[in-house]
Amino acid sequence: MRWMSEVRARVDARLAQYLSDKHASAAQLGEDAAVLVDAVRGLTMRGGKRLRPAVIVATYDAVRGDDAPDDLTPTLDVCAALEVLQTYLLIHDDWMDGDAERRGGPSVHTALAERYGSAHLGAAVAVLAGDLASAYAWELVCGAPFPEGRLGDAITAFRVMQEEVVIGQHLDLLGAADVSLMQHLKTGSYTVRGPLALGALLGGARAEQVSSLNRFGDPLGVAFQLRDDLLGTFGDPRTTGKPAGNDLRAGKRTALVAAAERLLSPGERAPLDAVLGRADANAADVEAATRLLETSGIRADVETQLAAHRRAAREALAAAPISSRGRERLTDLLVLLTERDH
Amino acid sequence: MRWMSEVRARVDARLAQYLSDKHASAAQLGEDAAVLVDAVRGLTMRGGKRLRPAVIVATYDAVRGDDAPDDLTPTLDVCAALEVLQTYLLIHDDWMDGDAERRGGPSVHTALAERYGSAHLGAAVAVLAGDLASAYAWELVCGAPFPEGRLGDAITAFRVMQEEVVIGQHLDLLGAADVSLMQHLKTGSYTVRGPLALGALLGGARAEQVSSLNRFGDPLGVAFQLRDDLLGTFGDPRTTGKPAGNDLRAGKRTALVAAAERLLSPGERAPLDAVLGRADANAADVEAATRLLETSGIRADVETQLAAHRRAAREALAAAPISSRGRERLTDLLVLLTERDH
Repeated sequence: MRWMSEVRARVDARLAQYLSDKHASAAQLGEDAAVLVDAVRGLTMRGGKRLRPAVIVATYDAVRGDDAPDDLTPTLDVCAALEVLQTYLLIHDDWMDGDAERRGGPSVHTALAERYGSAHLGAAVAVLAGDLASAYAWELVCGAPFPEGRLGDAITAFRVMQEEVVIGQHLDLLGAADVSLMQHLKTGSYTVRGPLALGALLGGARAEQVSSLNRFGDPLGVAFQLRDDLLGTFGDPRTTGKPAGNDLRAGKRTALVAAAERLLSPGERAPLDAVLGRADANAADVEAATRLLETSGIRADVETQLAAHRRAAREALAAAPISSRGRERLTDLLVLLTERDH
Repeated sequence: MRWMSEVRARVDARLAQYLSDKHASAAQLGEDAAVLVDAVRGLTMRGGKRLRPAVIVATYDAVRGDDAPDDLTPTLDVCAALEVLQTYLLIHDDWMDGDAERRGGPSVHTALAERYGSAHLGAAVAVLAGDLASAYAWELVCGAPFPEGRLGDAITAFRVMQEEVVIGQHLDLLGAADVSLMQHLKTGSYTVRGPLALGALLGGARAEQVSSLNRFGDPLGVAFQLRDDLLGTFGDPRTTGKPAGNDLRAGKRTALVAAAERLLSPGERAPLDAVLGRADANAADVEAATRLLETSGIRADVETQLAAHRRAAREALAAAPISSRGRERLTDLLVLLTERDH
């Protein structure tokens, strides 16, 4: 999809320029000062899909009408902000969750622990790199070229999104019983609902557009997360870039785990419980747990939920009072977010 | 000083109201969701002096002229932002530095590790609480009731301050050779230079006011930090609230350590090196190191540096083209920041 490649190229260019300016000014304070910027830049530029910016751009387009110019330039800083925000969240989360890899390379705390020869120092400096990325994200949002009122609304949406993500990550760390609420807050917020709100507000959406976009975004966010959960357990390691059984070994509370708790007896669940949260579970046991989720109908149950949410999102999109170009692009995203294989 | 008590009371009230609103909305998501807000609120409201808000208010006053109304109301949100920013920085730093106590109670990561029965979970949730406080600080600054241009400048100052603090903390963690640069970035930025810049920008300072306030703030920031270093080693535990020899045991790179490296031979420094960074150093050894810093003239050297910076700040203040009420208040702060005993 050509429009998405353009979003990616423009956002990449803006990020490269912004982070290179940051690097230059930190480097004036000495080599150590630039380490943090390097960490932020390294992870940000290693990321590829720029899905969240695409959501912003498509929504911005959707609410403005077909005669509006097809120009994403005004949204670029907010798009870049979302990517830098994600860098911040990934750096902090990877340390919290003990994930050693990210985007085909070592996670930031892992690389820094190696650099400084200390796990604690690596973690501490990674948290600082995340803190710096967070300040960058705010700078980019606050400096976006929109009139005061619209920008103020966007800033509010940006802040709500962050509050939700942080609370969602907390619930995730605690192994929250309510997996849907946790996922709604942790992932749905800044992947789908937040970028949709930002694009709509920056584009000057009318109230009826906002409410129909919410009817689209809420189920889309859930479908995205269900897809993510399915990939985390059944995905092909060669396309996902994560080891097989990653979510199971990490003990992640996914929709699959929630469905297994709901639908299987403790006895039936035994092969699953044997690997859940066991970082050292062997391949055969992981395989057995994965097979159980398949044969017991748990996978099918989650696939059915996903299909229902995807359908709801599609229907809401069809009915939304938005531009046809915007509708096409949001449809592209609906497909990409819910049918992706990595 | 009555004006400072008023600042404290007004800022306390604003913080109490803001954080209670945050608590109420998080509590709607369940008890776990409110834990983070509790952590932020607990530490914020336990803090007392509200020195940074006082710097903002005095500077805001100073640049507006004597006929301007003596009303701090417009600055309240930015004042509250600084306090919440400090909460965020303290939470993250205390975990990084392994400090178990803060403001007369357990540090946030310590309390949370206890709550969850896990050091890692305590640290992770503390980092999240800090992340949340950071988002709050931005919300408060971005929502402050000032015209777009002034507020934009204040937001820039707020962001620069954070970048400096984060880079300064990184240099501190690495045990940076250049102690002055580290302190300039880590503490000077958000204690003195940042709040001064915020007050000046919000008050609509003229260029000549900004430059003379910088000539005041730069040496004041250094003097404040030197006082902090002296208190961290020679302060009375009953007034500082920190155990004797705290900085020495923590291996903190202070102006005292830097002066000892500059002025003493390795042999002379032996009693100091024996406790520096040794959390388990006994009281007699800490006492010997402290005595060495006294008898070898290191303490006197740092006191002399402090006096010189205090004098420079005082002279810059006397010459600054500002209101007399502002000058009086900034003088109060100069005394408080550089002659305090806790």
